[in-house]
Amino acid sequence: MIDTLVRKIKETNNPTVVGLDPRLNFIPEHIKTEAYETYGKTPEGASKAFLAFNKEIIDATYDIIPAVKPQVAMYEQFGAVGMQAYIDTIAYAKEKGLVIIGDIKRSDIASTAENYSDGHIGRVQVEEEQYEIYKEDFITLNPYLGFDSIDPYMGNCVKYDKGMFVLVKTSNPNSGEVQDIMVGDEHLYEYMGKLVAKWGSDYLGESGYSRIGAVVGATHPEQGKVLRAHMPNTYFLVPGYGAQGATAADLAGCFNKDGLGAIVNSSRGIIAAYKKDTYSKTFSEKDFAQASRQAVLDMKADLTSVL
Amino acid sequence: MIDTLVRKIKETNNPTVVGLDPRLNFIPEHIKTEAYETYGKTPEGASKAFLAFNKEIIDATYDIIPAVKPQVAMYEQFGAVGMQAYIDTIAYAKEKGLVIIGDIKRSDIASTAENYSDGHIGRVQVEEEQYEIYKEDFITLNPYLGFDSIDPYMGNCVKYDKGMFVLVKTSNPNSGEVQDIMVGDEHLYEYMGKLVAKWGSDYLGESGYSRIGAVVGATHPEQGKVLRAHMPNTYFLVPGYGAQGATAADLAGCFNKDGLGAIVNSSRGIIAAYKKDTYSKTFSEKDFAQASRQAVLDMKADLTSVL
Repeated sequence: MIDTLVRKIKETNNPTVVGLDPRLNFIPEHIKTEAYETYGKTPEGASKAFLAFNKEIIDATYDIIPAVKPQVAMYEQFGAVGMQAYIDTIAYAKEKGLVIIGDIKRSDIASTAENYSDGHIGRVQVEEEQYEIYKEDFITLNPYLGFDSIDPYMGNCVKYDKGMFVLVKTSNPNSGEVQDIMVGDEHLYEYMGKLVAKWGSDYLGESGYSRIGAVVGATHPEQGKVLRAHMPNTYFLVPGYGAQGATAADLAGCFNKDGLGAIVNSSRGIIAAYKKDTYSKTFSEKDFAQASRQAVLDMKADLTSVL
Repeated sequence: MIDTLVRKIKETNNPTVVGLDPRLNFIPEHIKTEAYETYGKTPEGASKAFLAFNKEIIDATYDIIPAVKPQVAMYEQFGAVGMQAYIDTIAYAKEKGLVIIGDIKRSDIASTAENYSDGHIGRVQVEEEQYEIYKEDFITLNPYLGFDSIDPYMGNCVKYDKGMFVLVKTSNPNSGEVQDIMVGDEHLYEYMGKLVAKWGSDYLGESGYSRIGAVVGATHPEQGKVLRAHMPNTYFLVPGYGAQGATAADLAGCFNKDGLGAIVNSSRGIIAAYKKDTYSKTFSEKDFAQASRQAVLDMKADLTSVL
């Protein structure tokens, strides 16, 4: 799947990932009203509004982006009906040919990780029947438990051509509290980065990149450069552009010299573009998805200007 | 809620937590057959079998234990229907007066952690309506992102009297790959333990323990003692007893001198007790829940013998 992702990045000439992290205050009134009329102002109503919103964003952007990244927390918070909207969002984006990065950041011991693995990127078994549940292509994982918490995903990664991005240096302001501590003469994020590169070295694709990628926040430009040097064969999923404050110049160091090696996520900057002054003059609330398309094109131009 | 947990541990004189981590091969044939007849050999059939199984275990043990710990991965793997079984299991255990520790091990940046927090231990808002979704009393969290990934849970902890257990030293064999690395003159798990104790110091209950507890695996006896010394006011959630290999003697060091300070989880050792030679001679498959009750009593005797 890493090769598919690289191919789609080349085809679209765009390393932009659209973060499908809906919030009710991002969603146009007409979509919410329709969902509430059928399902009430309930978790189900909110979840149906999220799905309808996502579908329009996907329709307006699928031909110019390689991938989408739904953040499961937005759906999980609404319980079973929310998880169904997460699953339905993924199914819809897959129909449109997009690569799906499920931002789940799970972490658990091996016997439990197997269940996350089977549910998210493999198959669950009910007696002699097998079912594919979430259908992400990539998932994000937290490495604090070590490789035996990552290894249970590798079987499904190989069998079903999937991949993962492991947290190395996250985009939040205080990530340094843990990730920047000194381990001998290097920072913990460097130690983790080398570990992730080592874990991934057995899983290189034809593109030269590994199925095991890394999450490296755009909000830490210097650390991104350091990690890029330590991890030449590791694809970076880079959050933090836009709403979290990072610019294209900040994340240029996350790319390799050939312009590959990183995929950059933007969530609210794209999906809620119609609320920003830049776009609200041109696009009405009903045309929110076209504003998102324009925001993708502007982000692509911004990113490619520094590569 | 930490005070409620301590009170219930004293009332039952039992630091045993029953891990509700069902697997289909733990579930008696008559329960599976009934679920499959109605729902088919489907994710829904499996989820309904989990729920029926959990209810009988809860019925047979609720008066002799303080808490249950459902592992969300077992349910999440089956999609929306699985998450509903997780929610229904929690609701049933709460009706019986049990404290619920949701083993979710989530981790994310603040703006996303807020959604996990609202869904799991707070309230989600849909316009002017508020909904309580998962209703855990405690949840487990992964600290790799630092305190700004933990802080978004504190508002709901205080407002709704909830708590958390943060991963410090996990029970898996290779947890040392990351958690045992040297940070200056101490191990990372010590650094993390002190950090968790510091985070929790502003949230002490009347019991003297903090709302912010720690996960400390029983499979690492020496590390448990070290952490106990570093973290006198932190309650430990201790996995690894039984099926993962730890004995009562191994985890004695996780307790304070008053016999409090730790709560010990066992999952398959209790919920699949009827399959073990020790119990299969006395209890038939139909009496699986009574075998679980006996396993709880035996575990209680084993634990209290070392305190």
